[in-house]
Amino acid sequence: VTYAQAEAQNAKVNRKLDTSRFMAEPITDATVLLGDKANMRHRMELMIMEIQAEFCRALESEEMCGKKFKVDRWQRVEGGGGITCVIQDGDVFEKAGVNISVVTGWLPPAAVQQMRSRGKDLTEGVKLPFFASGVSAVIHPRNPHIPTIHFNYRYFEVETPDGQKQWWFGGGTDLTPYYLDEKDARHFHQTLKSACDEHDTTYYPKFKKWCDDYFRIKHRSESRGIGGIFFDDIDSPNQEAAFNFVTGCAKAVIPSYMPLVQKHKNREYGNNERQWQLLRRGRYVEFNLIYDRGTKFGLYTPGARYESILMSLPLHARWEYMHEPKATSKEGELMKVLKNPKDWV
Amino acid sequence: VTYAQAEAQNAKVNRKLDTSRFMAEPITDATVLLGDKANMRHRMELMIMEIQAEFCRALESEEMCGKKFKVDRWQRVEGGGGITCVIQDGDVFEKAGVNISVVTGWLPPAAVQQMRSRGKDLTEGVKLPFFASGVSAVIHPRNPHIPTIHFNYRYFEVETPDGQKQWWFGGGTDLTPYYLDEKDARHFHQTLKSACDEHDTTYYPKFKKWCDDYFRIKHRSESRGIGGIFFDDIDSPNQEAAFNFVTGCAKAVIPSYMPLVQKHKNREYGNNERQWQLLRRGRYVEFNLIYDRGTKFGLYTPGARYESILMSLPLHARWEYMHEPKATSKEGELMKVLKNPKDWV
Repeated sequence: VTYAQAEAQNAKVNRKLDTSRFMAEPITDATVLLGDKANMRHRMELMIMEIQAEFCRALESEEMCGKKFKVDRWQRVEGGGGITCVIQDGDVFEKAGVNISVVTGWLPPAAVQQMRSRGKDLTEGVKLPFFASGVSAVIHPRNPHIPTIHFNYRYFEVETPDGQKQWWFGGGTDLTPYYLDEKDARHFHQTLKSACDEHDTTYYPKFKKWCDDYFRIKHRSESRGIGGIFFDDIDSPNQEAAFNFVTGCAKAVIPSYMPLVQKHKNREYGNNERQWQLLRRGRYVEFNLIYDRGTKFGLYTPGARYESILMSLPLHARWEYMHEPKATSKEGELMKVLKNPKDWV
Repeated sequence: VTYAQAEAQNAKVNRKLDTSRFMAEPITDATVLLGDKANMRHRMELMIMEIQAEFCRALESEEMCGKKFKVDRWQRVEGGGGITCVIQDGDVFEKAGVNISVVTGWLPPAAVQQMRSRGKDLTEGVKLPFFASGVSAVIHPRNPHIPTIHFNYRYFEVETPDGQKQWWFGGGTDLTPYYLDEKDARHFHQTLKSACDEHDTTYYPKFKKWCDDYFRIKHRSESRGIGGIFFDDIDSPNQEAAFNFVTGCAKAVIPSYMPLVQKHKNREYGNNERQWQLLRRGRYVEFNLIYDRGTKFGLYTPGARYESILMSLPLHARWEYMHEPKATSKEGELMKVLKNPKDWV
């Protein structure tokens, strides 16, 4: 083929992929992505690209002065890369980060050991080649009546020395309100439950509890927020079904959250509400830096893109010594639910 | 002895101890403290009580509207207790915490293992009785031209099953400026060096390097501040000399730091300086929550008084995605020194 023919072919493939709807060009070359459409790595990459773009557009459309996401497409020396989208100091979103990454590399023996302890059948004491891709987002709105949302959906592959491949999915979505609106809580959990129920009615109760257990600020005996769903190591009943389940959860983010943004974004608030929001953001920082597995794993990985990992931190946070809201106040009402997580549906 | 006689005796002992100069009554009963004056536990408790009071008074005297420390004397169910002194929202000090604790308990096997890995001759796989006392402080001034200071001096005893006692001292003082003032840096380090040199001229260079190595935010390849001194496991040449060394370092805190407060507290600053200070405070939070051994050890200990551990966190902190000051700016000048720690004396 001549250069001109190759160019034309390339253009055709790119048109077919229609990358214009994404936040940036995919990490994997479009010809490769379309060359093997059945490959789960490629299906996952296209799915997370789409989720990222849809969610970013939905958030941008709520900004009142036209603030847009800053888009950074980055590459990793060790293999792969990502696209980090951030809004900072928007009028509705004080800080919003939506990140996708598609990376390959070698799992260090310590990470292999950690996976073995979770029940994976992997060879001990050796480095193993891995593939990981996922989308993750943390949205910190300015108005204290709008909750913070976090979600993450990921796909993982490890190859064992005998050439066998192990794969699994993980993820979750959870909500961190500053003031408790029971209707919001029910709507949010019901939306996640419906997404789960379509695939397996045992999922929601199991993953709701997993979420409550995971997002616990242990030294304070309180939860980060009102939970949602959280799961890992999903490899059944088959790859197709697992992918569809994860896709369904990721698609449920917008309907679970955007109505809450729209409902509260014009509500009035004063300095008391703002200070309380900042204190709770301090708790968010405590959880993410002390307990969150993803953050720790990320920061301890040499050469990690720490800016993409730490984009989850709020623009502002506050720590007061011995702050305790009155039990009968709005703030105290939230604390009751954070101390003792409850069922919402 | 009658009740009245005991009371009179008690009053006499208390008078002799003159607890009025302390921030609160000592944790150990005054009669016990004075009953065995040679006991290192008691000498250490009196020393840290004194350091706490002197430092708190020195800080209070810089407050312009008469703000005073809030004093909380607390007890630990497992044994011992502490005195936490905090100023919040002062005019000179945005948040200042000075804490002492004197606690006894049982070291869990994991902690014993950690000490064995540091070279302690301790029995493996058993709980061992311990005693720990120390003073620690973190001062976050409001004016970005005044640096943040941290110090901690502590004494530790563990008993082995054969009744043998092991003991050691640890501690350090370090400075975290927001803007680099080379004269300040030299004064601070020179004061610490002089305190070290009085006891052993090999100490300062060794402990200065240890400090630079310890207070490193590894994922960012930068230091928390411009260092100072840091040491652990000091048990030579003998207990008396080690105690005198640690006391000398603790006494050097006021002369190393208070002149900096006085020099800068009335300097003007604007929003740019404030925002930069808040960003650097975000880095301070990252170090303390991700890497600091004391914070992690504290928060993972069941029943720990987390309010006293987390009083080190600033009142406000800020995280911006991809913030990088210009190399030629005042902020960039500080960054150069944080990336590559240098010698100051």
